[in-house]
Amino acid sequence: MKIARPLRKLIESFEALPGIGPKTASRLAFYLLHVPQSYLDVFASNLENLKKQTKTCTICFNVAEEDPCPICLDRDRDKSVICVVEEPLDILALEKTGHYQGVYHVLHGAISPLDNIGPEELFIKPLFNRLKNGGVKELILATNPNMAGEATAMYIANLIRKSKGRELKIKSLKLTRIGLGLPTGADLEYADEVTLTRAIEGRRELD
Amino acid sequence: MKIARPLRKLIESFEALPGIGPKTASRLAFYLLHVPQSYLDVFASNLENLKKQTKTCTICFNVAEEDPCPICLDRDRDKSVICVVEEPLDILALEKTGHYQGVYHVLHGAISPLDNIGPEELFIKPLFNRLKNGGVKELILATNPNMAGEATAMYIANLIRKSKGRELKIKSLKLTRIGLGLPTGADLEYADEVTLTRAIEGRRELD
Repeated sequence: MKIARPLRKLIESFEALPGIGPKTASRLAFYLLHVPQSYLDVFASNLENLKKQTKTCTICFNVAEEDPCPICLDRDRDKSVICVVEEPLDILALEKTGHYQGVYHVLHGAISPLDNIGPEELFIKPLFNRLKNGGVKELILATNPNMAGEATAMYIANLIRKSKGRELKIKSLKLTRIGLGLPTGADLEYADEVTLTRAIEGRRELD
Repeated sequence: MKIARPLRKLIESFEALPGIGPKTASRLAFYLLHVPQSYLDVFASNLENLKKQTKTCTICFNVAEEDPCPICLDRDRDKSVICVVEEPLDILALEKTGHYQGVYHVLHGAISPLDNIGPEELFIKPLFNRLKNGGVKELILATNPNMAGEATAMYIANLIRKSKGRELKIKSLKLTRIGLGLPTGADLEYADEVTLTRAIEGRRELD
C-alpha cells in the first residue's frame, strides 16, 4: 500500500529532524491525524515564524527576539566575563543553573574538519573584536568536552596567546576552560579513563 | 534567561507530541534555527494540509486521499476476508509484509474504559453493517495483543456470536484472531509467561 501523499510528506518532514527515524516519524504523523486542525495550524505557524521572528544578537550571537539580546542589555550582568559556548541551547543550560553572572558568546558550532567546519565558519572573529574593544577580564571556554569542542577551545586559546601584546592589547586576560571531571551523581567505578584523567587534573584544593 | 517567544512556542508544539519530552523538544526547535526557511515552510504546509487533504474511507475507515481508499477499490483484493485493526498505521505494517490479500477495517482505537473509550467510540457498528451486507467469509481480529486490544477482540467476537442467526444472517463466518506467540528472532528463555502460554496455545501441526 502507498501511504496517502499528505501523510507521506509529513513523515518525510519529521524524518529530516535529528534523532527521529522512519518509525518515530510515521508514528508522529499518524498521531497528528487525531488532533484538532487548530493545533496543526498553530504548530505550522510556529514553524514558519521561528526564524522570521527571531534575530541573532550582534554582540554575543545568541538567538533572541531583539538585538542586542536581553542578556547583553542587562546592566546587572558582568560584561568583563565572557563564556564562549557552541550553541544558543548551551546558554539555556547554563542560565538554568542561575550561578553565572557574566555574558556569553555563541560560536554557532565547533571546528570539525570532517564536516567542513573550520574556524572561519564560526563566530571567532567577532569574539576577537569584543576582546579588542577591551574591558574583558576573563574568557571561559565552555565548548563541549568532545573532540570538536576541545579542538575549538584549543584553537581559540592558541590564537589569543599568539596575539597577546600584538593585535590584542590586553595584558591581564584570564583564559579558563569550563571544569571537566565527574558529573554529580556519577560512580567513580563506571567513569571512563578520559573523564577520570580530567577529574584528577582538575582537582581543587579544599578550603 | 527567558527563551525567545518564537522558540518557546515551537518547543511547546513539539512537546505536545507523544514520546517527545522537554529536552528533545528544545533540541529540535534549536536545530531548526539552522535549517533554511524553505524547509520550515514546507514542514508547516505539510502540517496544515495533513487533515485537509486526507479523507477517511467510508468502507474501511482507513486514511487515504480518495474515498473509497485504494485498497477497497483494488479488484485484486479478496473482499471476503476482513482484517480488523486498531489504527491506520497497523495497515501499513501488515501491507509491508506483502502476504495479506484481503481488505481491512480500522476501528480507530480500542476499548479502554479508563480513557473513556467504549465500543460506541469505535467503528464497530460500520463493521457490523459490512458483515450484514454479506459476502464476508472470514474476519481476522488483529487488534494489539495488550489489554485494550484483547478486550476489543473479545467484545467483537462475542457480539458476532450473539447476533449470528439473528441480525447477522451469515452462517459460515470464520472468526479468527491474529497469531500470538514468540516473535521471530526471540529467545524462549527470555520470553514472558503470557507470551509463552499463548505460544503453546497457538501451536500448529507441522505439515
